[in-house]
Amino acid sequence: MTQPEPSTPVTAADLTLDEKAALTSGADFWTTKGVARLGVPSMMMTDGPHGLRKQAASSDHLGLAESVPATCFPPAVGLGSSFDPELAQRVGAALGVESAVNDVAVILGPGINIKRSPLCGRNFEYFSEDPIVAGVMGAALIKGIQSTGVGASLKHFAANNQEDDRMRVSADIDARPLREIYLRGFHHAVTESQPWTVMCSYNRINGVYASEDPWLLTDVLRGEWGFEGLVVSDWGAVNDRVVGLPAGLDLEMPASGGRTDAQLVAAVHDGRLDEAALDLAANRVLDLIRKAQARPSIDALDVDAHHALAREAAGRSIVLLKNEGVLPLAPTARIAVIGAFAEQPRYQGAGSSLINPTRLDAALTELRAQSEGEVTYAAGFTLDGSGDAAALTAEAVAAAKQAEVAVVFLGLPADEESEGYDRDHMNLPAAQLALLDAVLTANPNVVVVLSNGGAVALPFRDRVPAIVEGWLLGQAGGGATADVLFGAVNPSGKLTETIPLRLQDNPSYGNFPGEYGHVRYGEGLFVGYRWYDERELDVAYPFGHGLSYTTFGYSDASASLDEGGDITVTLDVTNTGAVAGREVVQLYTSLPGSSVQRPPRELKAFASVDLQAGETRSVTLTVRAHDLAYWDVRVDRWVVEGGAYTVEVGASSRDLRATATVEVAGDTVRIPLSLNSSVADLMGDPIAGPVVQQVMAGVFGGGTEGMDAAGASMMANDEGLAKMLGSLPIGRLASFPGAPVTLDDVQQLIDRANAAG
Amino acid sequence: MTQPEPSTPVTAADLTLDEKAALTSGADFWTTKGVARLGVPSMMMTDGPHGLRKQAASSDHLGLAESVPATCFPPAVGLGSSFDPELAQRVGAALGVESAVNDVAVILGPGINIKRSPLCGRNFEYFSEDPIVAGVMGAALIKGIQSTGVGASLKHFAANNQEDDRMRVSADIDARPLREIYLRGFHHAVTESQPWTVMCSYNRINGVYASEDPWLLTDVLRGEWGFEGLVVSDWGAVNDRVVGLPAGLDLEMPASGGRTDAQLVAAVHDGRLDEAALDLAANRVLDLIRKAQARPSIDALDVDAHHALAREAAGRSIVLLKNEGVLPLAPTARIAVIGAFAEQPRYQGAGSSLINPTRLDAALTELRAQSEGEVTYAAGFTLDGSGDAAALTAEAVAAAKQAEVAVVFLGLPADEESEGYDRDHMNLPAAQLALLDAVLTANPNVVVVLSNGGAVALPFRDRVPAIVEGWLLGQAGGGATADVLFGAVNPSGKLTETIPLRLQDNPSYGNFPGEYGHVRYGEGLFVGYRWYDERELDVAYPFGHGLSYTTFGYSDASASLDEGGDITVTLDVTNTGAVAGREVVQLYTSLPGSSVQRPPRELKAFASVDLQAGETRSVTLTVRAHDLAYWDVRVDRWVVEGGAYTVEVGASSRDLRATATVEVAGDTVRIPLSLNSSVADLMGDPIAGPVVQQVMAGVFGGGTEGMDAAGASMMANDEGLAKMLGSLPIGRLASFPGAPVTLDDVQQLIDRANAAG
Repeated sequence: MTQPEPSTPVTAADLTLDEKAALTSGADFWTTKGVARLGVPSMMMTDGPHGLRKQAASSDHLGLAESVPATCFPPAVGLGSSFDPELAQRVGAALGVESAVNDVAVILGPGINIKRSPLCGRNFEYFSEDPIVAGVMGAALIKGIQSTGVGASLKHFAANNQEDDRMRVSADIDARPLREIYLRGFHHAVTESQPWTVMCSYNRINGVYASEDPWLLTDVLRGEWGFEGLVVSDWGAVNDRVVGLPAGLDLEMPASGGRTDAQLVAAVHDGRLDEAALDLAANRVLDLIRKAQARPSIDALDVDAHHALAREAAGRSIVLLKNEGVLPLAPTARIAVIGAFAEQPRYQGAGSSLINPTRLDAALTELRAQSEGEVTYAAGFTLDGSGDAAALTAEAVAAAKQAEVAVVFLGLPADEESEGYDRDHMNLPAAQLALLDAVLTANPNVVVVLSNGGAVALPFRDRVPAIVEGWLLGQAGGGATADVLFGAVNPSGKLTETIPLRLQDNPSYGNFPGEYGHVRYGEGLFVGYRWYDERELDVAYPFGHGLSYTTFGYSDASASLDEGGDITVTLDVTNTGAVAGREVVQLYTSLPGSSVQRPPRELKAFASVDLQAGETRSVTLTVRAHDLAYWDVRVDRWVVEGGAYTVEVGASSRDLRATATVEVAGDTVRIPLSLNSSVADLMGDPIAGPVVQQVMAGVFGGGTEGMDAAGASMMANDEGLAKMLGSLPIGRLASFPGAPVTLDDVQQLIDRANAAG
Repeated sequence: MTQPEPSTPVTAADLTLDEKAALTSGADFWTTKGVARLGVPSMMMTDGPHGLRKQAASSDHLGLAESVPATCFPPAVGLGSSFDPELAQRVGAALGVESAVNDVAVILGPGINIKRSPLCGRNFEYFSEDPIVAGVMGAALIKGIQSTGVGASLKHFAANNQEDDRMRVSADIDARPLREIYLRGFHHAVTESQPWTVMCSYNRINGVYASEDPWLLTDVLRGEWGFEGLVVSDWGAVNDRVVGLPAGLDLEMPASGGRTDAQLVAAVHDGRLDEAALDLAANRVLDLIRKAQARPSIDALDVDAHHALAREAAGRSIVLLKNEGVLPLAPTARIAVIGAFAEQPRYQGAGSSLINPTRLDAALTELRAQSEGEVTYAAGFTLDGSGDAAALTAEAVAAAKQAEVAVVFLGLPADEESEGYDRDHMNLPAAQLALLDAVLTANPNVVVVLSNGGAVALPFRDRVPAIVEGWLLGQAGGGATADVLFGAVNPSGKLTETIPLRLQDNPSYGNFPGEYGHVRYGEGLFVGYRWYDERELDVAYPFGHGLSYTTFGYSDASASLDEGGDITVTLDVTNTGAVAGREVVQLYTSLPGSSVQRPPRELKAFASVDLQAGETRSVTLTVRAHDLAYWDVRVDRWVVEGGAYTVEVGASSRDLRATATVEVAGDTVRIPLSLNSSVADLMGDPIAGPVVQQVMAGVFGGGTEGMDAAGASMMANDEGLAKMLGSLPIGRLASFPGAPVTLDDVQQLIDRANAAG
């Protein structure tokens, strides 16, 4: 920001129609237009979200040119595994500093879309298959970024869960999963962190472009959630700006070269667009520019400190999937490091989030630096598939034979994980799997270290004693990997997504990625672990799983209900092992006998605790009342169902250590009775119930013998007859020839019941 | 029909408005109103579909009173397993005769809804999880019924796949599964057999009551399929007759006591209803009455002959699931018959199809009649759960110990299978499973005989040497069971539905039966075996499975394409065993590399062949061109995709014996290009393709160096960049700042391409 701030705030009222139209779209790929005559500066927005991608050149029409160096923190797939919002907030603050130093007003992130399928090419940019994890981690990152006076952009709003046909596909989602899974994280992040901007997604939702959806961008985002910032289009997401702007799309990015500005002006002139809508949008852009102008000045950043933070974050991102006594490595161990990724790290995904890192640590270098023993290296394979596979394998096998332990770095090739397209399988390359088999034959004492942005199948998981899931760890991942392998860092990451046994087990399989412009979210609420639990499917590693070099005991759990409806759970966690460690405690709820479909358990809260060996600390987790609510399609609102909730606390979704029951009163939902109400509906009504019961008794209770015999003749038993009749709409029953009640009688009864309700 | 036929046909033009309104609704529960002054008689319609349920008493307002005796043929769950349309046609003719003798004009069946979930309470009334099986068997039954001058009623049209909330629930189904799974069987039955009536279902489809859906009842049924008969409401399915009648609902049943007639008259008077719609409906009722009047007179039926036919049909309905050399039983074998169902058969389901049988054979009696050895009997359990379980078990164990083989009759209690409500699990009663365990301990040589209308879990399947799936076999099932057990009948039935290992494996699990008035068919096309195959799930017994006492060899299969687009497959089937038998040969197709989602294989044809031991016969199967088509949502019509179809022939969906490939030219589908077409769409166009390719090459091919470096910087590789760009709508690409082409250029190119197409 170079222009001086005007003394009186400029508002839309100060602008001409043309100026308002111009102000609400980009000047070029990355900046907004200023209003020079009023001293309104332009403002820069650039890609994130796990580092700053500010393009060095500006001549590039797709925004693809090389960017200035910036710290590449672990992408969301890694950072999410920390389950550590405090850490995310610190990373966010660092991102803010890097943005500020580069005069960037808004950094485009975080992305908190749900990982619906492991195949989504952009999963590495997202946190979780669970909306609470995504929402909490996203909110923390936003708080951190915005603490520096830089704006965040919460994206991609909403239901952008695949890359395939992302600019046109309609995500066809029923109301409950849309609300409870796909919007819940956004809801959380907006209310907890008030991002300066929300970025609408490319795709359509139930047929309507996100960029043109008044329900999404205005009713829900502003009306229900109280969003106060600006909605910006994903780059190129505008389909028809004249439709989008009044729906709630404030700012089109990038530039349209004046084309869509002219469309807005014409639409105002011919009455298709209310100028007040344009005023709203222009004022939001002006507000955003003012917020950006108020940013405290930051002149320089501490590259070393940010690299150190990136290493800390990477260490906390690593998930120890399996460890049969192999890890941590002894300092003096004879180690064979195998796999090209050890030397040429896979540390981020491709696309708009691709960072030009300030430096880059290789695991091999870092392992050698920390080792007091012999560390040999064999590539085993090449990243581009070139080279003599037999020779590479032979070299790796020889190295493994000579070593006490072989650390094998496997991972997905960079071109399999990118914005813009999805994978069509979840396998590691066959050459890598073959290499691993060869190494295992030579030396079964193998540690597999994985580098992958999306989940991969682990067919070798029963045959190797240790698996370290490194996801993508950013520029300092090499050091963090060495820290964990040698035990300088005790791993504490947990899976934010299930690792299934097979792609075919995934809930979206067969529906993903849809065809001809539509993708049906047929699994409904049962996304991720909700599906695997509901169908009682075995998985490779469950949601929330992650080991430590120590062990933890859970005790003395108790749950209570606050006056506000929040559930508080307190428990003691003890480090029962020999080294210090950190445990991520997870809280799941369920409601047995619920009147609506529910997964067997849903994560509602989590907390971390650092413990010295032998230490015990009390941990408190809080379930917000709102997070207990389901979306009631009868009344189109959130409803907390009354009942005895099961609260489970544990180390993963399938390692539950303590259970409590909490009685919740719940919200009252009153659905007026009508002729379309079922006999059972009426039976349940305090006024109508007794009357209907009496009529039914008269019909079936032996009073009218014919009917009793009749019922018995056709139905298996009275209970069956009652069930069948219970589901009959009362109006239909009363319409049958010879019915014991008339429609008028029924209507009067209904009116009486509704009046009393 | 007692009134004389008028000399000139009465038409709607002869009737007053009141008369037309009256004629198009019932007089009481089972009859239409006549028009006495014109000699138009009333007409009776009564329940079916596997026997006549004509109520003896008429005073009953729910149609539940006891009915006149009639032959109870095997319900559809049994008859369908025969895969034998010729048999179904003979059964249909017998049903027609029984109807005619009772002066019934229309018998309400067959029901051909798809078995979406094993839990549907009415599955016993339906044929299959596959639409071709349902359509072919339904059409055959209709042909048989109507050959006697009695009308059939094809039901329940459509998507009535559950009983839960059946009067209100909306079956929310995407276009392809609706067309390719849920309507395909109706389509087949209507075009092949022209039922006199089609009965619309209670439920809604995508929010619209079937009884009020002009798309369903008129556009599809009459417009697309050429239905010429009358649409009758399911009993009580009318929600708003003023809406339903012009949608295509011709006749409301049962009577509304004149209430809805008056509504129609009022609606015509005030202009809400076009009287022409009422004329259409009235004429269809008059046509139906005329057809009924033309019925040849039948005075008496041969009860013995029908019972014999019921026995033949039952024998062909039995599916031998497993047989490790135990069956057939030796005539002299010492047999312990165990299980109350042996004495008190479960032979039909509850609800409107409940028949009052002319006689009833118990398996125990029939086994004793056919045995030359000792047959003991122990109930093992009671049907009502009364009695001393320990004593019953002890008696059964003692009997089993004394016997060479124990034949254990297990089954579902009658009250678990009924119209009007669904099951909530698929387990046999725990007491029966415990009894079986006890018997197995005493004597492992066990034959389990099952009586169940819906599929049940078979946790004992690895522990018993033989399993006979008897489904529900009608009144002569006892004799048929004895026939199969002793080998008088060599079993040839095949499963028309998958028996899964667990309910949780079922495709509709978690969606079924929905809540609050909606059920999402989230599994899409993947219903039944289509799901288990797509997800490569193990099953207890696959679709199409069924053993014989002989074995069959398949050879010399060849496939060819007819001029009309039908595929004909010819093969030789040889009876390679020692006894005569019958094989149901099944034909499945698939299209590898299809541009649309497809199940791994879909049944398209089947045929039966009777073979003496050692005999070989040629079998020909024909896939109708139309059955190869998928529903193309881009153009809303059936499209045969071109390509190399895989044709598999076998003894079950997972016992495929021969494969052939048939090249099909396919239909041409031309989608006009637009600004919303993707770059890849344009690339594939003969006119636009080369131009776009040239532009892209200019941008990325090194000509403009900046972009090439840019692409490389952000994307993992050129292929990735191409994939990402390929999915960009051309209009969006051309709108980016500095785009290499203008929107006008692109529009011109598109116009040129479309003009050439």
